[in-house]
Amino acid sequence: MTDHQPGPTSPKAQLIAGEVRRRIVEREWQQGERIPDEADLAVTFGAARATVNKALQLLADEGLLDRRRRAGTRVAVNPVRKAVFTIPIIREQVESAGMEYSHRVIAQRRSPVPEAIATRIGLPAGRILIHLRAVHYGNDRAFQFEDRWINPDSAPGLDTVDFRHQNANEWLVRNAPYLRADIAFSAENADRRDARLLRVPKGQALLILHRSTWNDAGPITTVRIACHPGYVMSTAG
Amino acid sequence: MTDHQPGPTSPKAQLIAGEVRRRIVEREWQQGERIPDEADLAVTFGAARATVNKALQLLADEGLLDRRRRAGTRVAVNPVRKAVFTIPIIREQVESAGMEYSHRVIAQRRSPVPEAIATRIGLPAGRILIHLRAVHYGNDRAFQFEDRWINPDSAPGLDTVDFRHQNANEWLVRNAPYLRADIAFSAENADRRDARLLRVPKGQALLILHRSTWNDAGPITTVRIACHPGYVMSTAG
Repeated sequence: MTDHQPGPTSPKAQLIAGEVRRRIVEREWQQGERIPDEADLAVTFGAARATVNKALQLLADEGLLDRRRRAGTRVAVNPVRKAVFTIPIIREQVESAGMEYSHRVIAQRRSPVPEAIATRIGLPAGRILIHLRAVHYGNDRAFQFEDRWINPDSAPGLDTVDFRHQNANEWLVRNAPYLRADIAFSAENADRRDARLLRVPKGQALLILHRSTWNDAGPITTVRIACHPGYVMSTAG
Repeated sequence: MTDHQPGPTSPKAQLIAGEVRRRIVEREWQQGERIPDEADLAVTFGAARATVNKALQLLADEGLLDRRRRAGTRVAVNPVRKAVFTIPIIREQVESAGMEYSHRVIAQRRSPVPEAIATRIGLPAGRILIHLRAVHYGNDRAFQFEDRWINPDSAPGLDTVDFRHQNANEWLVRNAPYLRADIAFSAENADRRDARLLRVPKGQALLILHRSTWNDAGPITTVRIACHPGYVMSTAG
């Protein structure tokens, strides 16, 4: 006996999702059309209703199906495309690429938060936060440069941590779980500092990741990560 | 009566997910610790077991919980961060920003696919595909420039479509549902053509989206989208 019903990735649910996807792709079930009830599909596929439910939810999450409480499930007319990215821990990402990870803290100090950053996380400008700048390396080549602000009020124990010995990203992941995260990608031309720390020409196009996290005590951290040229963020991993 | 059990966004499942999240964030349930069984939680929260299951799955999808078939559910030691982005239809994105949408087809022709692109989608180089280049505008300002290849074998009816009158993105969404998509973000300095079509200086950092889709007949389309400067792709929408 198991404690849980199968998750959405259970082989049976995946199988059913695959078959439903095929029917949609081959237009057996047309866009806008209502598909059979869960109970009927459970009989058709010889599966528990909960398993059919999971399979349909998987397709709804992908945007292929439109599920409404009382109106049943229809083939989406205008599929929303959802892309799920896994935001990896930098060290693991470097190591899984077969490189040796290292990092160097450029600065770690208490500092009043500038207005633009304060606004982003909903704190008054001038509040004293920890300002941390660090470069992450793979085989001694600059991989990412992070410029991070951490709110001591939301991360108890922070004062005792020396980020030269412990990577802030990992410490935060383990010690300050978040309730909410905002993540945004954009592109910027490397400024003088990006260029110096990543060892690239000034003006080089860089993928920039902004991430802010909150728990119930308020903002935990906000970080701007400048990725080395050629960095690709992809759904495949 | 409804045909479906509540989806993961049902208010009750959300409520339970919120409470479980709180217990994790406030360290009542520590990282690595096994949490109570679904059946017990169902009693605790006065909810159906399926609802508890959905709430836990929601948190597992976020990376906060680790669910194993027989080993039960534990608080994740090393939360994987998942970011879900909605890839919008360009026209809707422009219109929802309160701008008037228009688009201009630069070129639409049958052309042998170059090797780099053929490799990306798993076709032999030189295969004849539809090559389409178009600029999307919001209030007459260039919003995105797309350079797209479409495989007629995977998109029946393609030959009759004139993309000057119908936006390729929307036609494909409605007429060639995909089974699999690869999506990747990177940053590039605008080349001469990007610069001319987006009306930006050469070298301007641009967010580049590559997307390829497949159905069971093979690759449907692969597109490189260069976004206007300042474009931000965010989880918030």
